[in-house]
Amino acid sequence: MQATDAIRQLPSSYIREILQAAIAPDCLSLAGGLPNESLFPFEVLSRTFSAIGANIHEHTSLFQYGLTQGYPPLVDLLKTRYQLPGSHDILITTGSQQGIDLVARGYLAKGDGIALETPSYLGAIQAFSLTEAHLQGVTQQADGPDLQRLEDLFKTAKCKLFYAVPDFHNPTGCCWSRSVREQVAALCVRYNILFIEDAPYRELRFSGESLPMVASFCPEHAIVLRSFSKTTLPGLRLASLTGPKDLLLPLMRAKQAIDLHSNLPSQYILLHVLSDSHYSAHVQNLCEAYAMRCNTLCEALDTRLAEFGNYERVQGGMFLWFKLRYLEATAVARRSLEQGVAVVPSPVFYHHHQGVEQALRLNFSHLGVETLALAVERLARALGKI
Amino acid sequence: MQATDAIRQLPSSYIREILQAAIAPDCLSLAGGLPNESLFPFEVLSRTFSAIGANIHEHTSLFQYGLTQGYPPLVDLLKTRYQLPGSHDILITTGSQQGIDLVARGYLAKGDGIALETPSYLGAIQAFSLTEAHLQGVTQQADGPDLQRLEDLFKTAKCKLFYAVPDFHNPTGCCWSRSVREQVAALCVRYNILFIEDAPYRELRFSGESLPMVASFCPEHAIVLRSFSKTTLPGLRLASLTGPKDLLLPLMRAKQAIDLHSNLPSQYILLHVLSDSHYSAHVQNLCEAYAMRCNTLCEALDTRLAEFGNYERVQGGMFLWFKLRYLEATAVARRSLEQGVAVVPSPVFYHHHQGVEQALRLNFSHLGVETLALAVERLARALGKI
Repeated sequence: MQATDAIRQLPSSYIREILQAAIAPDCLSLAGGLPNESLFPFEVLSRTFSAIGANIHEHTSLFQYGLTQGYPPLVDLLKTRYQLPGSHDILITTGSQQGIDLVARGYLAKGDGIALETPSYLGAIQAFSLTEAHLQGVTQQADGPDLQRLEDLFKTAKCKLFYAVPDFHNPTGCCWSRSVREQVAALCVRYNILFIEDAPYRELRFSGESLPMVASFCPEHAIVLRSFSKTTLPGLRLASLTGPKDLLLPLMRAKQAIDLHSNLPSQYILLHVLSDSHYSAHVQNLCEAYAMRCNTLCEALDTRLAEFGNYERVQGGMFLWFKLRYLEATAVARRSLEQGVAVVPSPVFYHHHQGVEQALRLNFSHLGVETLALAVERLARALGKI
Repeated sequence: MQATDAIRQLPSSYIREILQAAIAPDCLSLAGGLPNESLFPFEVLSRTFSAIGANIHEHTSLFQYGLTQGYPPLVDLLKTRYQLPGSHDILITTGSQQGIDLVARGYLAKGDGIALETPSYLGAIQAFSLTEAHLQGVTQQADGPDLQRLEDLFKTAKCKLFYAVPDFHNPTGCCWSRSVREQVAALCVRYNILFIEDAPYRELRFSGESLPMVASFCPEHAIVLRSFSKTTLPGLRLASLTGPKDLLLPLMRAKQAIDLHSNLPSQYILLHVLSDSHYSAHVQNLCEAYAMRCNTLCEALDTRLAEFGNYERVQGGMFLWFKLRYLEATAVARRSLEQGVAVVPSPVFYHHHQGVEQALRLNFSHLGVETLALAVERLARALGKI
């Protein structure tokens, strides 16, 4: 029995190999997009688990079937926090990955066009590929996507959606300027394109000024995905999807056929983490810790790797994009594994194999400050040997 | 922006209306497939939550990203418990609903044929419909599907899969005989059909002899879905999918693009519930309680509704299938809501509108013994008024 074409043609599993190798106890990983465990909000977590344990019967409804939209008190909190207008609604999803999948299944039939930045988030490439949509790349520039190319695509191609990560892009760390945000929104309105704003890193800004979401300039043409994996706890697998009610309704119906609803005890735990009086301080603490790690990584790259490539400084997120001057990224990644450090080579972030910039995605959120420098040391050794 | 055809053509949302109406505080619901909350395994739940709360740092990894296949200690426990041979593997899914969706996406492209019993589980009809597969019905008889029709389908139609619920079928409560199990397995092997054995109610047998799974007669041609929602806790949204490794691999790849992995704290909690020394006693207790409720419902139907229809006794599960003698099921369901009792009318369990048997699905697991009789009282009042 053969699987469907869509699954057999899923993009390379090379990143799985890397992540598998990165589990080895002596391997330092700059590869994943993992938050740092030592910064988890342990105090409120501990308190919430203990409170459920002590009064289990009061929490019975958390263990029964629930509503597809989400746990009502969490839905209410987020509606308020996101200041959703009455025309908009929210859906709690099993991680942002499911949010992307829902959008893909809701709005993309085989052959439909979707624009996305190149490079782009691998998980989005995979989810969109599963629908056998036609993925169309828009090159990323220093302040966002190439607007001329974007308009050409919107104009000429059978393009329904534009998926993007405007804040601290994965993998490049790029943050769109305000002007680009406004112009992209205007193009989406003009050509009736649905903008999918994936914002998992938005709250992780550690310098510069926070910019409005693109969706704020085209609220009737946008669906926003917010993740709780980067600021809170990835293991809970929870995220939200917001947008105009009529755009969300088909996704709610699809979710019912896909997993009925997301895990309830975790929605309750998330509610308590988000409404804890220390939550703002927790996020600020994360930002400060990641700023420090980012600086450490930059210093180590400047000291040890300047001859091999360069990168743009970032104002937030979890990644640096180290552009290689001479070397081929996949070869570097393989050689690095031999030296005990994992990185992700740029080709995995391209849905086609044209115009691939040779670069490494380097994560700075997961390792400790001391090990970051050691990881770069190993990377330098690997580069020196090629 | 219009949603895809597949989503716009999703089967009727009437069951959602019923479930919505059934939430009203004065409505007694025989409609859902909910386990009885008073029988949840509270003691081990309470203990597990308290233990996590008391030692939160020891449980850090539950809150980080995890493996797509599942939480390794849970994977190991289930492999042992299900006595999986080395050729087979397991995948933890976000409820059995996701298991069905994964199978659908993994093996059904638009226009591919899938056989399923008529009537059939609504969630399966929805998940298979989303792939735009060609759903082909096989009438259910007293001891399982019509084998002649099944073989004709396998022989002549472009049929890849057969999806069925052999133990205490939803909605009919039917349990396949041993002979039918063997013959279906033989047909799947002969015609190279993948058998999808959905077994959420299998452990809820309260009388008669347990029969081997169909998959045990065709292990290389079967994927088995087991749910933890009926015997354990639906709110955790966890289930397992087992089968030959080469059949599961595409589904694991798909799951990575669909939700990365299932919730980790819940997998840990499930592990502790399943490995608790009281687990067998818990399931036995459930079976006894449901047997009692089933008897109560049967007695009430015999006393109050015999003139309106009839039903087959069941040996397990959560449902009775009350066949109406004269009346139309949807009209009865609507009228019943007005009398404060919710039931599901048979048409929602048919993927087409031909050959629909007029019947009501009556759940006996969720209400208490006293309220079951009252619910039938209201149902009798509704029927009397039509």
